[in-house]
Amino acid sequence: MKLADIYLKFQSDITIIEQELEATVQARHDVLRDASTHLLKAGGKRIRPVFVLLAAKFGHYDINVLKNIAVPLELVHMASLVHDDVIDDAELRRGQKTVKSQWDNKVAMYTGDYIFAKAVETSAYFDDPRIHQILSNTLVEMCIGEVEQIRDQYNWGQNLRNYFRRIKRKTALLIAVSCELGALAAKADPKIQKHLYDFGYNVGMAFQITDDILDFVGTEKQLGKPAGGDLRQGNVTLPALYAMQHDREAATLIKEVLKDEYPGTFDVEPIIKAVNQSGGIEFSLKMSERFLNRAYDALSKLPDSDANFYFREIAAYIGERKF
Amino acid sequence: MKLADIYLKFQSDITIIEQELEATVQARHDVLRDASTHLLKAGGKRIRPVFVLLAAKFGHYDINVLKNIAVPLELVHMASLVHDDVIDDAELRRGQKTVKSQWDNKVAMYTGDYIFAKAVETSAYFDDPRIHQILSNTLVEMCIGEVEQIRDQYNWGQNLRNYFRRIKRKTALLIAVSCELGALAAKADPKIQKHLYDFGYNVGMAFQITDDILDFVGTEKQLGKPAGGDLRQGNVTLPALYAMQHDREAATLIKEVLKDEYPGTFDVEPIIKAVNQSGGIEFSLKMSERFLNRAYDALSKLPDSDANFYFREIAAYIGERKF
Repeated sequence: MKLADIYLKFQSDITIIEQELEATVQARHDVLRDASTHLLKAGGKRIRPVFVLLAAKFGHYDINVLKNIAVPLELVHMASLVHDDVIDDAELRRGQKTVKSQWDNKVAMYTGDYIFAKAVETSAYFDDPRIHQILSNTLVEMCIGEVEQIRDQYNWGQNLRNYFRRIKRKTALLIAVSCELGALAAKADPKIQKHLYDFGYNVGMAFQITDDILDFVGTEKQLGKPAGGDLRQGNVTLPALYAMQHDREAATLIKEVLKDEYPGTFDVEPIIKAVNQSGGIEFSLKMSERFLNRAYDALSKLPDSDANFYFREIAAYIGERKF
Repeated sequence: MKLADIYLKFQSDITIIEQELEATVQARHDVLRDASTHLLKAGGKRIRPVFVLLAAKFGHYDINVLKNIAVPLELVHMASLVHDDVIDDAELRRGQKTVKSQWDNKVAMYTGDYIFAKAVETSAYFDDPRIHQILSNTLVEMCIGEVEQIRDQYNWGQNLRNYFRRIKRKTALLIAVSCELGALAAKADPKIQKHLYDFGYNVGMAFQITDDILDFVGTEKQLGKPAGGDLRQGNVTLPALYAMQHDREAATLIKEVLKDEYPGTFDVEPIIKAVNQSGGIEFSLKMSERFLNRAYDALSKLPDSDANFYFREIAAYIGERKF
């Protein structure tokens, strides 16, 4: 089963969420509206809303309730991307100009603030304080993750634990709570909420590791931006960390690039080759697989259902994805 | 009665809020913790928490409930200051180095995000969706206000309506909802909530107009930063707007300063003199007084009480304050 087929099964509800997203960012202010709409149109797989819907299938599924948590989760993701692009000084995202490049850093900062605020406003629909607690705690953790990423930039002395903690906060947590909050909003059994959180967390970890691998082995066309971007921004990810710890030649090459705070363009080919030869890509693939297996474990504790099957298919897609 | 005497009456509860504020920003991350604590220590009058406490006196006063809304409101104020300083490129705030100057713009952006997130997390205590709706809607409006401020910068063609709408979003709204949410959290009568909102809104408008007047007539020692800072940053406030519309000489001088996007240092004395001669200061004082009178009107609709008396004293202080 292809990912597109799963989306087809939920097409009418995804359309509702898409319309809600658009309506939500229709600010009375032109720059905010244009910047937010620009972001929305840039697309994305809307994986967080889809996870909300699938998770809710384990409880009482009502799209008119669920949209009030699916929309905020996607907005939080979008807002974090806008602020991320300010930090990374990124010109392109998914092949499109970023808000900070189309407008400027100040507009990007406030567009992010605005989208965050709209996310919180939309979730105000719920009267269950746990939903607010989980969502706001996620925002807090994501901010800590962002600052950790700044601290760890250009730091080739960091250990694997730093890396895993950082990608948990950066990516896995929001996917985990998408599953958890989908189930919670649908009033599914607390045990089911827990297993769905575990599934989301492990899938999220695998997803980010795959992303970090692709940054080394993908083509510019696949990535929508040049390969080697992480190292260029001083972000030391799993393949590079492994390579530096296990291969002297790779370590020398990577340290050379990280020495300079703004290396600009540099020849990424020798580094990719060195990372590959060190076993860094292979190790990262194995780690991704390990997280995926834990994700499958979590699913095996959930009742058999269409949603369970779709979750499994999505996990498999993440294990195989090339871009 | 002096403002300090009112604070004395609430000293133990203000201390509780102060401790909660400190505990709330104790991030596990050093930069976030240091930057947030730096902000807290820079002080401020904690006017929003005090308004929460006073407003709650019209309902069932319980500090252990109230602190969960007083703390978020002060945090939202702090977060907006941090992001504001990024926009204004401000080096000093209340005579202290700003986060963006002590660290950098990126740290300031995420410190603001973090404090916003902590604000939302703290308010998650409440299960009344109206509290979440009012607070999050305020966040949205404040963001729109910030972007409006960027748009209106260096724009001497704007009208008074722009100015009043902007300072509502920038200042008055958060003070209004501090009163409203204090009353709501204390389950005061909805009519009382409404009058308290009106009081806070009008006091907030008067407060900001006074601030904008002081930027022209205050000394560096009083302001904690050089006078004329607003114009230097391209922010056209009420005294300048009035002067430009009523005095050709003042208009020429101000336009000259606004022509250059980054005028740096310029001689502010002739402008202050021209604004004064145009009647811009006098007009602004009258407008401030008009809002203050509306604030008194709102109080007159509330039951007579100590809190009512204290609110009146605070409004009087705002009418007279010199820094």
